[in-house]
Amino acid sequence: MPSSELYAVIMAGGSGTRFWPLSRHRRPKQLLPLAGGRSLLAATVDRVLPLVGVGRTLVVTGEAVADAVRAELPSLPPENVLVEPVGRDTAACVGWMAWRLAERDPDAVMLVLPADHAIPDADALARALMAAAETARLRGGLVTLGVRPTRPETGYGYLEMGGRVGEAGGLAVHRVSRFVEKPPRERAEAMVEAGTFLWNAGMFAWTVGAIQGAIRSHLPELAAGLDRLRAASAESGEDTALRRYYPSLPGISIDFGVMERAPVVWVLAVDFAWSDVGSWRGMEELSGHGGVRIGDVLSVDSQGAILVSDGPLIAAVGVPDVVVVATPEAVLVVPKEQAQRVKELVESLRAAGRTDVL
Amino acid sequence: MPSSELYAVIMAGGSGTRFWPLSRHRRPKQLLPLAGGRSLLAATVDRVLPLVGVGRTLVVTGEAVADAVRAELPSLPPENVLVEPVGRDTAACVGWMAWRLAERDPDAVMLVLPADHAIPDADALARALMAAAETARLRGGLVTLGVRPTRPETGYGYLEMGGRVGEAGGLAVHRVSRFVEKPPRERAEAMVEAGTFLWNAGMFAWTVGAIQGAIRSHLPELAAGLDRLRAASAESGEDTALRRYYPSLPGISIDFGVMERAPVVWVLAVDFAWSDVGSWRGMEELSGHGGVRIGDVLSVDSQGAILVSDGPLIAAVGVPDVVVVATPEAVLVVPKEQAQRVKELVESLRAAGRTDVL
Repeated sequence: MPSSELYAVIMAGGSGTRFWPLSRHRRPKQLLPLAGGRSLLAATVDRVLPLVGVGRTLVVTGEAVADAVRAELPSLPPENVLVEPVGRDTAACVGWMAWRLAERDPDAVMLVLPADHAIPDADALARALMAAAETARLRGGLVTLGVRPTRPETGYGYLEMGGRVGEAGGLAVHRVSRFVEKPPRERAEAMVEAGTFLWNAGMFAWTVGAIQGAIRSHLPELAAGLDRLRAASAESGEDTALRRYYPSLPGISIDFGVMERAPVVWVLAVDFAWSDVGSWRGMEELSGHGGVRIGDVLSVDSQGAILVSDGPLIAAVGVPDVVVVATPEAVLVVPKEQAQRVKELVESLRAAGRTDVL
Repeated sequence: MPSSELYAVIMAGGSGTRFWPLSRHRRPKQLLPLAGGRSLLAATVDRVLPLVGVGRTLVVTGEAVADAVRAELPSLPPENVLVEPVGRDTAACVGWMAWRLAERDPDAVMLVLPADHAIPDADALARALMAAAETARLRGGLVTLGVRPTRPETGYGYLEMGGRVGEAGGLAVHRVSRFVEKPPRERAEAMVEAGTFLWNAGMFAWTVGAIQGAIRSHLPELAAGLDRLRAASAESGEDTALRRYYPSLPGISIDFGVMERAPVVWVLAVDFAWSDVGSWRGMEELSGHGGVRIGDVLSVDSQGAILVSDGPLIAAVGVPDVVVVATPEAVLVVPKEQAQRVKELVESLRAAGRTDVL
């Protein structure tokens, strides 16, 4: 398995409000210093560079943050940061990369990873990704990583393992029997109890040919759009083609548009610590102890608090149950158990025209 | 009573940590925008200007904040802001002004007011101060204002009214029978119940001659120091004299050093709303409703919270019981009922060498 055929595509187009005010329009979650002082994006790139090399690491992002993404990744050639003119969800992003790579190397294997997940054990991830690449190459289909659940999390999707079909790199390979959307609590508990369900971690491996075939089968409109995009790119240059054709690609996720429709998907069951860092509480669970401390923070009798500063000193006294996030522009204070209300707050700010803090 | 003989001395030398991080070394409480968006100092000056005129309004402050004080009071001649080279408590401050005025106008009446109290009803205060000045002139002694207590506050000193001796400007004039230090709760309740006790509001009126005599009687060391200071001022200029002699003046409060030792003190009982703004909770009580909102604040389900910003937007969701004070340098979060712990916090910061935020 020569490594010349392995590519990593890191999807860094996300934007979101759950980490407001730390996350903002031009600084989404993947750029926040949530990976031990470094950004989740930089940590993700560092995890795959040793596997595929700097030349075959591709980062796809959006226009609003492209400059910040390049600045965050000084070791990456600037042309390896690819910019969608508008976001069209993950199927279009993956498809664009697959169609592009197909022109250079149709047998290449693509690893696809979100830029904004936290995986502290880089070695375990590396072994799993290499095993997934090997499986993609040998079995020729779509491969995903599934994380053994450690709690009945209702914020993640699940997948059920069907029969075991073999092993790769010491990991069991199963066929996926079905995907399950984010479940209610009781369902999540039953799935964890059953022992045959894994968290759908959104990390994939496939050959360029396999994903092209799957997109042609399950998302023919996307495939046709990508054919037009590539033809136009050859004629008038990629930037012009992207502006012309990318906005009209159908916006659908790779999970919903391809994975859940594919007749065969392989899953490698992994058991390293993983979080999609979907909320401050997710950060806390990954840290393994109560509370989060990032930045300049002084905590007195506030053991369990989630205290995150991107500038001002946060002095928290006697508030073990709160989230405090401070930037020079805005300060959020909310009880931990109401942390999801930040969405509501951001809506209020948007309605009030407070773009100065969004 | 020609107004040419009336002076106001505003004591603006205070420093303190109870309003940290809003109050800082170079921006003490009297400079904070706690009087409806204006500083307590500016509000105090505005209250007395109509009574005594701009030329006879004197503000005494310390070196660290003198420039800020002058900037805060653009309508006042800069030479009316007098600067102590070091703080020596209120008896030295009052004495310095009395000795100074004695050279110009030994029969002048001095009103003495702290710069950092809140008194929303300026008219009521004006009437009381004019009545106090009249009493000082007619009776020739020391006059203080006492505020009828509205609650058994343990954070204030009290004084007991003796027999009523007359009236001035519609206010009863009593002789003070005794002063009471900040009392425990039960004592405070008993005093409020008794109806003969007033809050010691730290506002005074006396002729220059009366306070000079009282200082000579009760603080002879201070009087001797002030004699030396004035003699040296005449010889080598006031700045040089202050540096040479002011630091050696005894540091004692006018209350403890003079008022409590004087055989006769007159008190005018007033009943306007008054607060020494000793804490955020004091602010809240004065506001008459739950909570405080100052600056850029968005509050959701946080009705009773004390939210004060000097820069960043504070977004508070579901935290009705907290104090949040935000500046560009530091953010404090503490439950309202533990707000006094800010002192402890400031000590920790001092011990940690965090002068950048103090």
